Amino acid sequence: MSDAFEKLCDHSREIALLNSIESLLDWDARCKLPEQGSAYRTEQQAYVARLVHQKQTDPRIGDWLADVQGTDLTADPQSDSATIIREAQRNYDKQTKLPAELVEALTRATNDGQHAWVEARRENDFSKFLPYLENVYRLKREQADAIGYESCRYDALLDDYEPGEKTSTVRAALEALRTDLVPLLELIQASGKSPDRSILTREYPVSAQESFGSQAAKAIGFEFDRGRLDVTHHPFCTEAGPDDCRITTRYDLNFFNMAFFGILHEAGHGIYDQGLRKSQYGLGPGHYLSLGIHESQSRMWENQVGRSRPFWDHWYGAAQQQFNSLQDVALDDFYFAINHVEPSLIRVEADELTYNLHIIIRFELEQALIDEQITPADLPEAWNSKYQQYLGIQPPTDADGVMQDVHWSAGLVGYFPTYSLGNLYAAQFYQQADKDLGGLDELFRRGEFLELKRWAGENIHQRGRNVTPAELVQEVTGEPLTHTYLIDHLQSKLSPLYGI
Amino acid sequence: MSDAFEKLCDHSREIALLNSIESLLDWDARCKLPEQGSAYRTEQQAYVARLVHQKQTDPRIGDWLADVQGTDLTADPQSDSATIIREAQRNYDKQTKLPAELVEALTRATNDGQHAWVEARRENDFSKFLPYLENVYRLKREQADAIGYESCRYDALLDDYEPGEKTSTVRAALEALRTDLVPLLELIQASGKSPDRSILTREYPVSAQESFGSQAAKAIGFEFDRGRLDVTHHPFCTEAGPDDCRITTRYDLNFFNMAFFGILHEAGHGIYDQGLRKSQYGLGPGHYLSLGIHESQSRMWENQVGRSRPFWDHWYGAAQQQFNSLQDVALDDFYFAINHVEPSLIRVEADELTYNLHIIIRFELEQALIDEQITPADLPEAWNSKYQQYLGIQPPTDADGVMQDVHWSAGLVGYFPTYSLGNLYAAQFYQQADKDLGGLDELFRRGEFLELKRWAGENIHQRGRNVTPAELVQEVTGEPLTHTYLIDHLQSKLSPLYGI
Repeated sequence: MSDAFEKLCDHSREIALLNSIESLLDWDARCKLPEQGSAYRTEQQAYVARLVHQKQTDPRIGDWLADVQGTDLTADPQSDSATIIREAQRNYDKQTKLPAELVEALTRATNDGQHAWVEARRENDFSKFLPYLENVYRLKREQADAIGYESCRYDALLDDYEPGEKTSTVRAALEALRTDLVPLLELIQASGKSPDRSILTREYPVSAQESFGSQAAKAIGFEFDRGRLDVTHHPFCTEAGPDDCRITTRYDLNFFNMAFFGILHEAGHGIYDQGLRKSQYGLGPGHYLSLGIHESQSRMWENQVGRSRPFWDHWYGAAQQQFNSLQDVALDDFYFAINHVEPSLIRVEADELTYNLHIIIRFELEQALIDEQITPADLPEAWNSKYQQYLGIQPPTDADGVMQDVHWSAGLVGYFPTYSLGNLYAAQFYQQADKDLGGLDELFRRGEFLELKRWAGENIHQRGRNVTPAELVQEVTGEPLTHTYLIDHLQSKLSPLYGI
Repeated sequence: MSDAFEKLCDHSREIALLNSIESLLDWDARCKLPEQGSAYRTEQQAYVARLVHQKQTDPRIGDWLADVQGTDLTADPQSDSATIIREAQRNYDKQTKLPAELVEALTRATNDGQHAWVEARRENDFSKFLPYLENVYRLKREQADAIGYESCRYDALLDDYEPGEKTSTVRAALEALRTDLVPLLELIQASGKSPDRSILTREYPVSAQESFGSQAAKAIGFEFDRGRLDVTHHPFCTEAGPDDCRITTRYDLNFFNMAFFGILHEAGHGIYDQGLRKSQYGLGPGHYLSLGIHESQSRMWENQVGRSRPFWDHWYGAAQQQFNSLQDVALDDFYFAINHVEPSLIRVEADELTYNLHIIIRFELEQALIDEQITPADLPEAWNSKYQQYLGIQPPTDADGVMQDVHWSAGLVGYFPTYSLGNLYAAQFYQQADKDLGGLDELFRRGEFLELKRWAGENIHQRGRNVTPAELVQEVTGEPLTHTYLIDHLQSKLSPLYGI
């Protein structure tokens, strides 16, 4: 092993260790920190972030990389060594290509932007948010230009979240998806059918939700001796070490779906993190591949598994035992209720189908903003017009419209499409797993979920960053990313429910 | 302000910030960490410890200190600036006086020692622990010699926990205490009286213990918007920032005392931490004075307040409401039960009186070991003989005798006496507060505890390290440390109960 390679690995692991400490500080801030403790916590997190930045921009990395690039170590691009080097090069380039002034300006702009967003949203006054948003988008364009790109600026931003993925590919998939989703939604709405959703808003005691949710998370393979489940405001999943994965949820006494499907979703993220190769922690081969692939794992367990009939064939008896509110509810009615499709204003509350239309709207708008086809001032009108076009509804206020998400104020441009990519990947992987494992429905009816976890571990989790998302999809399913599996999944579930 | 002084302060604050991160890692490891996460957590903690050590031994500290020592900044020894400089000098000296090899040897010896202790204790085999203990004591003597001392080696070790305190002073106080305690205990035992302790081992539902304990902690002044209460195996109190104090407890369904008096005790520690001057966080004036003074605050709330009759005159009704097990118990019987005195083998389970005899035995033995008047091989016999002499009992096994505490295996020599110093300080401070506030009993009967908290804040907490423990006692009570207030406290409480 080359000396430079060893040093590169050690240095990457040291950065990962600091990042893991930052993750714990952040988890604690969002789950446990006393109210008054936040000011000092911000100092602690900023301090660790500075240490990480120093390590990431250490010029010795450039020297080590120069020593190892083009050697035997990079001969096979899918080997661990080539992946470690590629990942280190990628991180080093990202850190060193951006001028320090731009990094600082972005930090300031996104801090200010998030504060302005909170206030403007509370006051439902987009004009107060506008100058901050303009500033963020101006700097994100500068960032894209500094990083560089081949065909379009958006590529440079997308790459932060979906390494190696191209805007054109994502656009093709999401446009095809939209083209099929809109008429499907129209059919559903024209069916005149609708489940009794009120059964989901009866009383569901929090302690029972917690124990039932934990039981399900455990059953699908989240390992509680290497992880935790806690309460927070905005649920997330984080890793504070290779054997320390923390998922979170929030409980609503009067809404079953929020915590239960939230837990399945975060457990799906957690199972991915727990499935990464521990020996490669902190290095490319032990790193999650992309946000889209990460989301595919959460969505698969939440939707393909958790909203399936076989899943509830197994679990519904236990649910009825634990929740009085379900005792007079037939499984058919419950199953229809958790799969109801209806256009709504708020992305995070949307159903499995319309969720993607929320994302496509954002994806289209942020491309237009980055390419300066529209300006931030045009956003409210453009937003409302797309909601009318794709979902048939219009937000009554900007607070529930263009200002509902924190992402843009925080500089997260290129992030939204990864949510829908996750749905596409999930459907495409799932049909393959179903083939490979000889029928998942039967397994689920028997309460056997660990076969699917094992399959995803071997085929997806343990591949780390040794491949690109596009390569992984091709490798696992034998074809490139396509929207057809998600459409098939939705149609085959929803057609019988809505008689369409 | 001098430039060197500013740099010294900034540097000290940076060390405090790193230490606060270490505290959170440690708190999490002891309260929340998933089982499998401990190996990586050890790496995280060791990494931060190395960063702290690098900062603490930064040679620039020596230069800055040289610049500020002997200037106006140190003219008034009780001023903030002099305290900051004195504290920085003290830390720098401690860090730089020890040869690196000795520090490493101590780290190894105490790590190995603790592992050996766990195993030897489980197997009740002192001979397995002996070589490790010999090694630790040999290195602790080397440490004392490297640090230096005037009159005795033990001074150099005691100073780590009780800055500026001398062995001779502590010995005089604890010998006088022992001289008065032993006959008092004999009188109690001869009285033939004993409360019904079984009322404390009835069923006390954990959720009610948690809510009642939190209520009491809040009432005596622990601020939950700047702190938390969690569950752990070995309760402790830690600070993860100036507004982030975390106390812990453990619940036993069948023993009221463990959690309730444990919470009062840790809340007392927490109230001290929360009472430190925030503007001086990370600097001498914002630092707790000593372990003994810290312990005085926990003991005062646990014993002087929490085991007093006026405290229960106020709380007993609420306790009876929350615990069915107390509904048929008269306050007199409950009060006697929580104040029962009886020799027992295990320090951490001992009552308010005999606890000090456990400490005195350890204090006498560790002095003898450091001075090489006895060797570690002599310990089991010496231990058993002192237990016979002071407590009238002998441990049936070394596991429940000389091997019951982790301290010596961990290199904590000079630590034990701070527990009893805490009891002495607590009694002496408390009688002064009682005078200053015109009678605490009446306040407590009305449920008013915040006056005492305010008094302790002004007189003790906010004094930081601007004074020594001896100066503080003199300043607050007008006389030097004496054992008489603790004896008075015990006698006036126990005499009526035991009719002696």
